[in-house]
Amino acid sequence: MPDTPLPPGSTIGVLGGGQLGRMLSVAASRLGLKTHIYNDEPDAPAFDVAAETTVGPYDDAEAIARFAKAVDVVTCEFENVPAEALEIAGRESHVFPPPKSFAVAQDRLIEKDFVSGLGIAVAPYATVDSLGDLKEGLAKVKTPALLKTRRFGYDGKGQVPIHTHCEAESTWEAIGEAPSVLEGIVRFEREVSVLAVRGRDGETRFYDVVENVHQGGILANSRVPADISSTTEFEARQIAGKIAEALGHVGVLCVEMFQRGPDAPHLIVNEIAPRVHNSGHWTIDACLVSQFENHVRAICGWPLGDVGRHSDAAMANLIGSDVDKWRQLAAEPGAAVHLYGKAEARPGRKMGHVTRVSPKTSD
Amino acid sequence: MPDTPLPPGSTIGVLGGGQLGRMLSVAASRLGLKTHIYNDEPDAPAFDVAAETTVGPYDDAEAIARFAKAVDVVTCEFENVPAEALEIAGRESHVFPPPKSFAVAQDRLIEKDFVSGLGIAVAPYATVDSLGDLKEGLAKVKTPALLKTRRFGYDGKGQVPIHTHCEAESTWEAIGEAPSVLEGIVRFEREVSVLAVRGRDGETRFYDVVENVHQGGILANSRVPADISSTTEFEARQIAGKIAEALGHVGVLCVEMFQRGPDAPHLIVNEIAPRVHNSGHWTIDACLVSQFENHVRAICGWPLGDVGRHSDAAMANLIGSDVDKWRQLAAEPGAAVHLYGKAEARPGRKMGHVTRVSPKTSD
Repeated sequence: MPDTPLPPGSTIGVLGGGQLGRMLSVAASRLGLKTHIYNDEPDAPAFDVAAETTVGPYDDAEAIARFAKAVDVVTCEFENVPAEALEIAGRESHVFPPPKSFAVAQDRLIEKDFVSGLGIAVAPYATVDSLGDLKEGLAKVKTPALLKTRRFGYDGKGQVPIHTHCEAESTWEAIGEAPSVLEGIVRFEREVSVLAVRGRDGETRFYDVVENVHQGGILANSRVPADISSTTEFEARQIAGKIAEALGHVGVLCVEMFQRGPDAPHLIVNEIAPRVHNSGHWTIDACLVSQFENHVRAICGWPLGDVGRHSDAAMANLIGSDVDKWRQLAAEPGAAVHLYGKAEARPGRKMGHVTRVSPKTSD
Repeated sequence: MPDTPLPPGSTIGVLGGGQLGRMLSVAASRLGLKTHIYNDEPDAPAFDVAAETTVGPYDDAEAIARFAKAVDVVTCEFENVPAEALEIAGRESHVFPPPKSFAVAQDRLIEKDFVSGLGIAVAPYATVDSLGDLKEGLAKVKTPALLKTRRFGYDGKGQVPIHTHCEAESTWEAIGEAPSVLEGIVRFEREVSVLAVRGRDGETRFYDVVENVHQGGILANSRVPADISSTTEFEARQIAGKIAEALGHVGVLCVEMFQRGPDAPHLIVNEIAPRVHNSGHWTIDACLVSQFENHVRAICGWPLGDVGRHSDAAMANLIGSDVDKWRQLAAEPGAAVHLYGKAEARPGRKMGHVTRVSPKTSD
């Protein structure tokens, strides 16, 4: 690992060309850095703002090697990058975040074992590799529960709810008999997330804790400040810091948590994402240095940037046809509209977001 | 002129690929718009963040026509675009700002006649087409004065100071006997500038008035709020609004002014720039919608964005070797570093800027 920062003019290779890659690219340009975006489809939002682009499958060893050789550092905008791609890239260049962050985040079982191994509370869970496991698990994990595939789940995909023991067989079929985790549905008062950024030197900074609302498994709204006490804010940051350190993470890490009532462990970790995250989009408009720029700074060995919040913010995703309101949103005072340049507004597709800012009410 | 806004996915053609084009490109991407950058040299800062690029001279009629045909609207990042290029582009696409804004801003004499014709104060001036004119002018405009070429002056270039009548001949020679304007040097208390943005429908919004410091003819620092009364703030906006309206301007317009003492016309217009401007860079970090995004909104027929300032700001240009301090600046709390991706830090070259923000002290 080089111990000097990558100088302006260097090129960051980004695996993945969606909206996160697009906003990473824009953030990199502020610092005089270029991006080279690698994407498996030619029509990628990030291509519009990239200095270099490569279209290729993520399992094309040769293309990945060529790409990694052409850049000064490699990062990812999504967590489900094949481990082989990261390994190949790592032979030709520096890769941040480190492989461990991906290995843990890519597999719900490994993730839960890892987080609970740190003494951090998670929802009750059981490993499910067979129908027998599922039945056994249901004895341990109370219904209602969710059966989630260990791998490749996001935005509510790869999970099936299970309400009674009688549904074991149909649920096992519905999940495609894939290696899974049975997870108890915990009742919670609110969902929060912490965006941490950890530098190569281990310095870690935290954005203010975000309060999130999901709809149909997809993030709908985020707002800052969250309606939580300063004790909870502190606790949430501590949890995220502990995870980031244990991973040896470099870059932005998002930790999603549930806040429960007073009769249960206070904060439960739901999920971690070893990357910039939808619940951090508000940082573009309400912080001096956004999550995207801080991710770039971290992976390039730069000093971390100011994470202070200058305004309160409420972010709403524009999903599918929500984006048709762009003209009206653009006219709204106090609103910043962000559109991702995607041609087709398919249902459930994240097309953009809007951040409504207002003067800061609290610290 | 189309009366519906250009939808997301449209392409903006930008003549000029410097840092202003770069920041316009980034702003366009926020709105789901693409840019096609036209530049006369292959190594352009804006190319790093553009969807399409063309390298060609500005007087290549065919290349300009091809470029304009390929985009949905054409704009410029610098005012000295040849009139012919604008005319050719106008045949193939929509061009904003309108040709009049360029015609006036490209020629110091036309500019001064135009502004004073609106009843707005300017420094005393005289037309100089010959040595005789210069001698005559010196009788009318008191020394010390500046002899400035009518065309192609920027950042202190194309001007020669003249202290006494005896220097007439040497000054006329130094300016290359070019058609010029003799301009009296006015004493002023401060330099301010107003960034106005005017939409296709004539709606005009103003960012807070900026206080500027020039060094060696180049902008060194800008800060907001300016140390002026609300009456002066109002007067400055009124002047900028009057000019924007008289030009039929569309997009961002910068009007630089001198504030004089109580015994002279209060505000004197020094120069206008029909484009996004260095003294508006602070808007990226201290406003929800930057000058760049508002320029894009205006030329695309979108509703104008929020120009409110959420923080106080002080912008310092990084000129030449100033940029070597990037690492130190990146570590400074409350500072946003912007680097333009230029390889060579030549003396006098704008390499980047830093904006220091602090909580808002006044409205």
